[in-house]
Amino acid sequence: MKKILIVCLFALISNNILAQKKYEANWESIDSRPVPAWFEDAKFGIFIHWGLFSVPAWGPTAKDGVGIYDRYSEWYWKGISDPNRKSYAAFTKFHNNTYGKDFQYQDFTKDFKCELFDPNEWAKVFEDAGAKYVVLTSKHHEGYTLWPSKESWNWNSVDLNPHRDLAGDLMKSVRNKGLRMGYYYSLYEWFNPLYKANVNKYVDDHMIPQMKDLVTRYKPDVLWTDGEWDHPSETWKSTEFLSWLYNESPAKNDIVVNDRWGKETRAKHGGIYTTEYDLVHDQNATGMEINHPWEECRGIGSSFGFSRNEMLDDYSTSEQLIHILVDKVARGGNLLLNIGPAADGTIPVIMQQRLRDIGKWLKVNGDAIYGTRKWANSPKVDKDTKVYFTAKGKDLYVIATKWQDSPIVVAGIKIGKVQMLGFKGAIKTSIKGDKLTIIPPALSPATNPSDYAWVYKIEGVL
Amino acid sequence: MKKILIVCLFALISNNILAQKKYEANWESIDSRPVPAWFEDAKFGIFIHWGLFSVPAWGPTAKDGVGIYDRYSEWYWKGISDPNRKSYAAFTKFHNNTYGKDFQYQDFTKDFKCELFDPNEWAKVFEDAGAKYVVLTSKHHEGYTLWPSKESWNWNSVDLNPHRDLAGDLMKSVRNKGLRMGYYYSLYEWFNPLYKANVNKYVDDHMIPQMKDLVTRYKPDVLWTDGEWDHPSETWKSTEFLSWLYNESPAKNDIVVNDRWGKETRAKHGGIYTTEYDLVHDQNATGMEINHPWEECRGIGSSFGFSRNEMLDDYSTSEQLIHILVDKVARGGNLLLNIGPAADGTIPVIMQQRLRDIGKWLKVNGDAIYGTRKWANSPKVDKDTKVYFTAKGKDLYVIATKWQDSPIVVAGIKIGKVQMLGFKGAIKTSIKGDKLTIIPPALSPATNPSDYAWVYKIEGVL
Amino acid sequence: MKKILIVCLFALISNNILAQKKYEANWESIDSRPVPAWFEDAKFGIFIHWGLFSVPAWGPTAKDGVGIYDRYSEWYWKGISDPNRKSYAAFTKFHNNTYGKDFQYQDFTKDFKCELFDPNEWAKVFEDAGAKYVVLTSKHHEGYTLWPSKESWNWNSVDLNPHRDLAGDLMKSVRNKGLRMGYYYSLYEWFNPLYKANVNKYVDDHMIPQMKDLVTRYKPDVLWTDGEWDHPSETWKSTEFLSWLYNESPAKNDIVVNDRWGKETRAKHGGIYTTEYDLVHDQNATGMEINHPWEECRGIGSSFGFSRNEMLDDYSTSEQLIHILVDKVARGGNLLLNIGPAADGTIPVIMQQRLRDIGKWLKVNGDAIYGTRKWANSPKVDKDTKVYFTAKGKDLYVIATKWQDSPIVVAGIKIGKVQMLGFKGAIKTSIKGDKLTIIPPALSPATNPSDYAWVYKIEGVL
Amino acid sequence: MKKILIVCLFALISNNILAQKKYEANWESIDSRPVPAWFEDAKFGIFIHWGLFSVPAWGPTAKDGVGIYDRYSEWYWKGISDPNRKSYAAFTKFHNNTYGKDFQYQDFTKDFKCELFDPNEWAKVFEDAGAKYVVLTSKHHEGYTLWPSKESWNWNSVDLNPHRDLAGDLMKSVRNKGLRMGYYYSLYEWFNPLYKANVNKYVDDHMIPQMKDLVTRYKPDVLWTDGEWDHPSETWKSTEFLSWLYNESPAKNDIVVNDRWGKETRAKHGGIYTTEYDLVHDQNATGMEINHPWEECRGIGSSFGFSRNEMLDDYSTSEQLIHILVDKVARGGNLLLNIGPAADGTIPVIMQQRLRDIGKWLKVNGDAIYGTRKWANSPKVDKDTKVYFTAKGKDLYVIATKWQDSPIVVAGIKIGKVQMLGFKGAIKTSIKGDKLTIIPPALSPATNPSDYAWVYKIEGVL
Repeated sequence: MKKILIVCLFALISNNILAQKKYEANWESIDSRPVPAWFEDAKFGIFIHWGLFSVPAWGPTAKDGVGIYDRYSEWYWKGISDPNRKSYAAFTKFHNNTYGKDFQYQDFTKDFKCELFDPNEWAKVFEDAGAKYVVLTSKHHEGYTLWPSKESWNWNSVDLNPHRDLAGDLMKSVRNKGLRMGYYYSLYEWFNPLYKANVNKYVDDHMIPQMKDLVTRYKPDVLWTDGEWDHPSETWKSTEFLSWLYNESPAKNDIVVNDRWGKETRAKHGGIYTTEYDLVHDQNATGMEINHPWEECRGIGSSFGFSRNEMLDDYSTSEQLIHILVDKVARGGNLLLNIGPAADGTIPVIMQQRLRDIGKWLKVNGDAIYGTRKWANSPKVDKDTKVYFTAKGKDLYVIATKWQDSPIVVAGIKIGKVQMLGFKGAIKTSIKGDKLTIIPPALSPATNPSDYAWVYKIEGVL
Repeated sequence: MKKILIVCLFALISNNILAQKKYEANWESIDSRPVPAWFEDAKFGIFIHWGLFSVPAWGPTAKDGVGIYDRYSEWYWKGISDPNRKSYAAFTKFHNNTYGKDFQYQDFTKDFKCELFDPNEWAKVFEDAGAKYVVLTSKHHEGYTLWPSKESWNWNSVDLNPHRDLAGDLMKSVRNKGLRMGYYYSLYEWFNPLYKANVNKYVDDHMIPQMKDLVTRYKPDVLWTDGEWDHPSETWKSTEFLSWLYNESPAKNDIVVNDRWGKETRAKHGGIYTTEYDLVHDQNATGMEINHPWEECRGIGSSFGFSRNEMLDDYSTSEQLIHILVDKVARGGNLLLNIGPAADGTIPVIMQQRLRDIGKWLKVNGDAIYGTRKWANSPKVDKDTKVYFTAKGKDLYVIATKWQDSPIVVAGIKIGKVQMLGFKGAIKTSIKGDKLTIIPPALSPATNPSDYAWVYKIEGVL
Repeated sequence: MKKILIVCLFALISNNILAQKKYEANWESIDSRPVPAWFEDAKFGIFIHWGLFSVPAWGPTAKDGVGIYDRYSEWYWKGISDPNRKSYAAFTKFHNNTYGKDFQYQDFTKDFKCELFDPNEWAKVFEDAGAKYVVLTSKHHEGYTLWPSKESWNWNSVDLNPHRDLAGDLMKSVRNKGLRMGYYYSLYEWFNPLYKANVNKYVDDHMIPQMKDLVTRYKPDVLWTDGEWDHPSETWKSTEFLSWLYNESPAKNDIVVNDRWGKETRAKHGGIYTTEYDLVHDQNATGMEINHPWEECRGIGSSFGFSRNEMLDDYSTSEQLIHILVDKVARGGNLLLNIGPAADGTIPVIMQQRLRDIGKWLKVNGDAIYGTRKWANSPKVDKDTKVYFTAKGKDLYVIATKWQDSPIVVAGIKIGKVQMLGFKGAIKTSIKGDKLTIIPPALSPATNPSDYAWVYKIEGVL
Repeated sequence: MKKILIVCLFALISNNILAQKKYEANWESIDSRPVPAWFEDAKFGIFIHWGLFSVPAWGPTAKDGVGIYDRYSEWYWKGISDPNRKSYAAFTKFHNNTYGKDFQYQDFTKDFKCELFDPNEWAKVFEDAGAKYVVLTSKHHEGYTLWPSKESWNWNSVDLNPHRDLAGDLMKSVRNKGLRMGYYYSLYEWFNPLYKANVNKYVDDHMIPQMKDLVTRYKPDVLWTDGEWDHPSETWKSTEFLSWLYNESPAKNDIVVNDRWGKETRAKHGGIYTTEYDLVHDQNATGMEINHPWEECRGIGSSFGFSRNEMLDDYSTSEQLIHILVDKVARGGNLLLNIGPAADGTIPVIMQQRLRDIGKWLKVNGDAIYGTRKWANSPKVDKDTKVYFTAKGKDLYVIATKWQDSPIVVAGIKIGKVQMLGFKGAIKTSIKGDKLTIIPPALSPATNPSDYAWVYKIEGVL
């Protein structure tokens, strides 16, 4: 009883502190704000890339001989427009053959109907996946917004097809399920003439009011910016905006932002640090071996936007995705796994399948993921044994992503109570010096608690 | 020879004067600029309403029991949106039955293809009509521009269908035929959120730069503004803009503007005064019985934009149009007769027919129209005899819009040489006091020089 | 009273005769049926070409250097398919540029919406034109039917767009106005595989049942066949069909057919003889200087189907059309003047204008047209004076299609009462030998009864 | 060497026998033809439902409270047309909300573009699935054919979108991969007026020539008829057709047909017997516990045509599908598993995933499936232990679809060499009386040869 009271008081105070502190428009002050704890506890979120690019829904694949970053279907408009990109030949060949040379990107608006979009069904899919938050592209580099933004008149989802506030409708359903809702927002817009002619005016008259509108309308839990690389954060007025966001906006308490606020900010400033298909533009950030909240984002295939050109082999398997999740979490990160809905408003069932498999695994093993932190003493992951660690309170989790018939040795651990999540049998262990040896149990196909990865929980050792 | 020299000198000087005088941003200064002479000499221009409204191409007609101003098809978007307008019931009934309730105005962009648009053919039609200038809607109240305006990104004819610079292409063809080219431009935009939220910002960031772009690109001979009624000219910064237009713009020498620069300006400030279907918002201006260049605009039917709902009886006859032209010119005005091209880029042939008939009449009788001015001593037009007068140099033109077998009496005229334009026979006249009596000749169907109106030219009497 | 009785008896008898006579399936018998009198009295009918070809609505024009028969827009499908036709280059250039090579003719079905089709308005236009009958393309060579023909499943106007029985709906409105209704029907279908593979089966299973369905459903007054030239009438089983039509069909009393029943039948067999733009395939028939009911058909422009490629100069003037009507009637024929409605169901207003002008002329001068016959003693038409004759009962009509100030001499006529239709003044005449001399009255523009052609009626001279 | 020779001779002779025997047009004779052996050896085929129904691609699901047979998306047209069907409310609600009441089924043709259809990719997917034959809907009840059938003019995939011979193109790719190709063909057509008016004429003029054309063009290995229930086989002239097929057609040697040739023929006449979602219309046939080749067909979800309305839970899992395959094969049948490609020509990736999982299982365990027959002494399948048997030559296969840690007892078997397919370890067995007891090996996740089902092969015991 007393304990609860203290916790409550602390919560009130810390809340107050968050609420009271005034952040100034400089990185030192902005960076001093702690990332809200919910984020690091959540571990697994769903990224959604949806927009006009979902109409052609096409990107090159490995067959076309281009790298990952050239396969993104959401870069379609750029793909057919910029002869300097490696994917130009593939994009224009597809476009001209399929739609004809005279058909322009804006003409796709006629087919973004979303006639089957049911946000409650989407939210159910995300919940079943074990995800704790959702981040939707409110506006990608194309500039088309998924909400009725007055800054994007006649270039948003209410003025044009599907004539619906996609961002708002999804938000309600997602929150009804108890998940947190956030938005991706591209700072730049490839072809916006104002951006190209006068970035300062663009920032003042278009971008900042648009972001403030987004935040004010939907009070997001995440604001996931991107498209920052052309200019330093000073040009984007990022610190001014963030000080507003942290001090005044209705989202100020829980909002989480990332590190994409200017060409110099990745893995340096802002909120969480971000990787993307394990890489970021700033090489030093790779691996994220630093003590700062971070998040990896990636598609299930090699595109964020839906690509009808991707066949089964272009999709990661459920096993691969679960291993990626374990790897990121063990290294202190979150996984923001992307899905690309279709232009008709459906989530391709293969994506539902992948999410379901992750959810099924998390139902058994989620204790080793949610609320955990990187184990300070975690050794490097051995390529053969593939054993990972996470920590929560006094408990340590040992996660084998490859089944081991031979014993698993954990260094630096005094004996604790060991169990396998989802398995009722006892786990044999032994201690030698400061090493704990775990003997994997005999699992038959009938008693195997889950596929892909197995968790030994060692209670009370930290 | 000497005469020519003097004229040339005078031209140089006056040109210089026009060029040198600095106009200040106030109405007194702006209004001091004379309307360029070419305009009053031209007398007959072609107005063109073309835009997204040309896709539904529908307005109510007399059958729907609404007045002229509620029949304009170019008001379609407003028509289906504003329940307070009288035409709302008719517009929404048509729209819902034809396209369905969920179909929105922006969705019409998919069908504005202009696939048959041939600006050279258009220019030939205008030339054959005897028109001397052309005014195209560069942007109507819908905000969609017919040129690649960066202020209207993704809401113009190059970003969207028909993916073509309609304003520029027509300009070239029109000027190749020796006609002058101008543009209609709506100051306000019904549904532009920036206009609705912050008219000042709209004016500064959107409207003024857009008009300057239009003027700088195409150097128009006419800038025909409209949609000014919501705000005083101060809000629109009209005098600032006009001082730029007159002092600095590349169109400064020949540009003609109208009087639609603010809710208080019609028939008071700016350039030419305007009437529309014989009326203007300011009742006092009706009839334009003042000594100032003015212009009547109207459609051939009761809509400016093409209305597929108009059948033959909704169109004015060639006779009616020629009588309107004579009436306006005799009262010192110009006629800006409108055509509404179709979404496929064709000029409906009935409109070509009307223009051709006017052109045919002008080929015989144009001497009584082009370059003339109102005759200072012109009596009121008698409802029965329908005789009009125009003056040019020392010559007086008597125009009978209804054939008279009985003599025509012209008061206040000393005898001059009288002929009927297009007729080779002699015209009998007599003088009694200060009255000249003209005896109409016997015309058979074989010798009749033209239909609809007959001109007696009296040379050397003024 | 007695007179009426006799007339009634006669009507009953003649009706009986028509009804009773059994026509056999051979040309001698079929040809023995007199053309129902209503047809020759009617003189002026409206032909309507409407179908899928109304969607592209395009044919080459004189500019493309092809002759009349290559300009027909209703031949579009053939035009883009048959490299041996002279118009192939023009058609394919337009098609490929406008729709793309992959777009096929059948794809036009999506745009045949007829959303503005109001058959009552159409019927009013025809009535105002002074037309007495209407002939609609129930099926052109493309095979698509304008009624729900079960022989053309999924290739008719009810299964496909516009999802409406166009043939039936128009019939009701036309008959409500007291006009007669007929249908054009193409025997062959260019691309019907059954026709190409097995013409006999096509005739038995497709064509004959389809024609019988058309006749049985709508009881037409005219059945206007075409597309007969590939095969002799024996192949088409024409005489069998006609014996059914004359003996058994519900249309047997009033039905009028033409001479297009086999490659050997034009101007030889069937009902009325037909010319088309003054020519028929059988050269001997040109001019139709034989004593048999006949009819000239032609478009207002040089296409039957609407061609958006035709500008004003491609259309005949009202004067030309009235002169054609006079010429045909004076030579014993009818005029079936064609209009080409648009895919949206409107009649292009220029066509309404032409029809209106004809109607206006007929309102004054119709007495010289309706119910008349060729004057047996009619001299050849003089190229300079352009005087035509028609006869009705004891009256002779002298029609001057060019105004004559000089006297008109009519040979072989004893004096009769002479008047000018629409003109109240007396007409001076004189007799010399067997020649009647008519002195044209002095007409001013104010007293001229009509434009284009003037009629002197000489009563009681025949 | 000698053995091979004998086999070859036998093959030649039996081939000759097949080729020489003349089948008469009666069921006794037709039924006397053995089903070609390739079929029973093949065991696993891919059914493909593709057609205009793939455009709306929608059927009710369990949520709509209708049974399996009312969920078929390929019945869409019937679904929106027949108020007596249970699914009528669901279909019409969807249709009217999504497309509007005025939108008719034929209007879907505009969107059947198949722009991403790559038959080689499809064939690769089928090969990887371990399938041995493919059956494509050449024509479903809608009547639209996937090849250029002249009997279905303007209602086939070449005349209309996608303007491509889908049936022919897929055939080439499938055969290039060494798989056999067949076609589904619906005898009846719901809305074909000829069928409704005169079934005999329909059969003679439409159906029979169309089937012969299909067979002659593509020489299919399977002709899978359906839609036979309205009429007895006599009406369909089935035996006449089959005698032609067996005696004269170019497909006569290898062709396999089914039992859907008339309302009385299922599980009685023709070739293989068919079940569908475990049921056939004739209740007696359920379970197929007779000695005749048979085949079960079903979708992966509860529709054959693609249904965008099906979410993950509507799809069978890979485990369920593998269990179904084992069950059918153990009972002597084949499995024809259906996929429903999308209107854009892609195979939804979830279907690729299911097929891949089956293929992966077959790569390990195919020996127990391909070429096997029902084991004559097979006991009833126990609900708890779920053990199935298949036989091939002297070998018996014991297939456990549920992992058993406890011993498996096989009655009536003398000892043979026992191994687990895909597992290298030895399998312990014991004999007691005529019972063989198999002791399942200890399998860890690392040594488990496959998921879902495990095969013990007992060599040389039959």
